[in-house]
Amino acid sequence: MTLKLSEAYPDHVFASDCPSRIVLDHVTSKWGVLVLVGLAEESPLRWGELRRRVQGVSEKMLAQTLRTLEADGFVSRHAFAVVPPHVEYALTPLGEELAERLVDLMSWIVEHADGIVGAAASA
Amino acid sequence: MTLKLSEAYPDHVFASDCPSRIVLDHVTSKWGVLVLVGLAEESPLRWGELRRRVQGVSEKMLAQTLRTLEADGFVSRHAFAVVPPHVEYALTPLGEELAERLVDLMSWIVEHADGIVGAAASA
Repeated sequence: MTLKLSEAYPDHVFASDCPSRIVLDHVTSKWGVLVLVGLAEESPLRWGELRRRVQGVSEKMLAQTLRTLEADGFVSRHAFAVVPPHVEYALTPLGEELAERLVDLMSWIVEHADGIVGAAASA
Repeated sequence: MTLKLSEAYPDHVFASDCPSRIVLDHVTSKWGVLVLVGLAEESPLRWGELRRRVQGVSEKMLAQTLRTLEADGFVSRHAFAVVPPHVEYALTPLGEELAERLVDLMSWIVEHADGIVGAAASA
């Protein structure tokens, strides 16, 4: 089986100093994936809506994940000047491109997860 | 923007107890992605070949990653009864399906990584 990465980067991706390692760390964190997929389904979302959507995420991890995704240019943050504070998060165009691929990956994982976890438990 | 996950699992994926969380943890570990993508490009590979391909992985992390991917049914291990020991790793058919999606994701990340890391550094 031979599935080639973009011909322009045949070895690049496996190198320790490839910038893609940093992005990979960010977007393949469990919470990173779930926040991006959540925003792909419905956007913009308020902080509290995201927190309820991504079950099990702590306030600290959600804040850290959103900061990282915002710094990478995947998520935009809009703070409304109202009392009480109202902050919304949305995907940027770059984030939408990434999220398409993550939704495809997540759909596959969800469809196959029961069998896979079963295999692991009986191994 | 609305990108729906498989209609069969609209909320499932965000639940803390969804089995997909476990699989997501396994396949979105940095080393998990790189091992699967490496095997997607060339398979089977011997232990030493994988270790050289996935630059920066420690022996301990490579062993742990391969054990997890094998238990999930993504990777098969074949030990030849020779001296010195010769062990080969390959993708299973399930692993090939998953790897297709990861190669697509990684290709996108590699193509965009320079701009993204730049954005993060200047943020």
